[in-house]
Amino acid sequence: MNEAEKTIKRIQAQKGVEGVIVVNAEGIPIESNLDHQRTLHYTYNFQQLLARTQRVMKDLDPQNEASLLDIQTEKNNILISTGKEKYIYTRTIL
Amino acid sequence: MNEAEKTIKRIQAQKGVEGVIVVNAEGIPIESNLDHQRTLHYTYNFQQLLARTQRVMKDLDPQNEASLLDIQTEKNNILISTGKEKYIYTRTIL
Repeated sequence: MNEAEKTIKRIQAQKGVEGVIVVNAEGIPIESNLDHQRTLHYTYNFQQLLARTQRVMKDLDPQNEASLLDIQTEKNNILISTGKEKYIYTRTIL
Repeated sequence: MNEAEKTIKRIQAQKGVEGVIVVNAEGIPIESNLDHQRTLHYTYNFQQLLARTQRVMKDLDPQNEASLLDIQTEKNNILISTGKEKYIYTRTIL
């Protein structure tokens, strides 16, 4: 099992986790438990949003950067982590 | 004490909370404990980011919308709530 597969397993083991996508440094999804179309759709949208967030954070404080973006919605949470390998996952509200 | 002042008091009472800004439905900051320039800077940037987030969420699921955006950084958390009166606040990591 490679690192990306291990990340998926580790996150999926948490209560309420549904979809998990692991994205490499080039922005390409390398592991996902969602179908192909949803994987691409989520990856594209949330990478754009993360890039925008990083620009806002740098503008407010050049010494700071976002490490996790947590979007809470009526139906679920979407979490987007940063780092060498980003991951995106959704969690139902328990 | 009006509702916006009460919101500031309530949030500030939480551990680690630093800045709090209450923004009305028109996007104007109506209460803040930050200086004028930082209040305007934060309000402008985070409202833009929240609007972008809402567009992404609607695109993925028209029946869903973000209720809270939590940006975790190395130094602090920035939380942006939605609702009739939005509020933005930063919290140090404890």
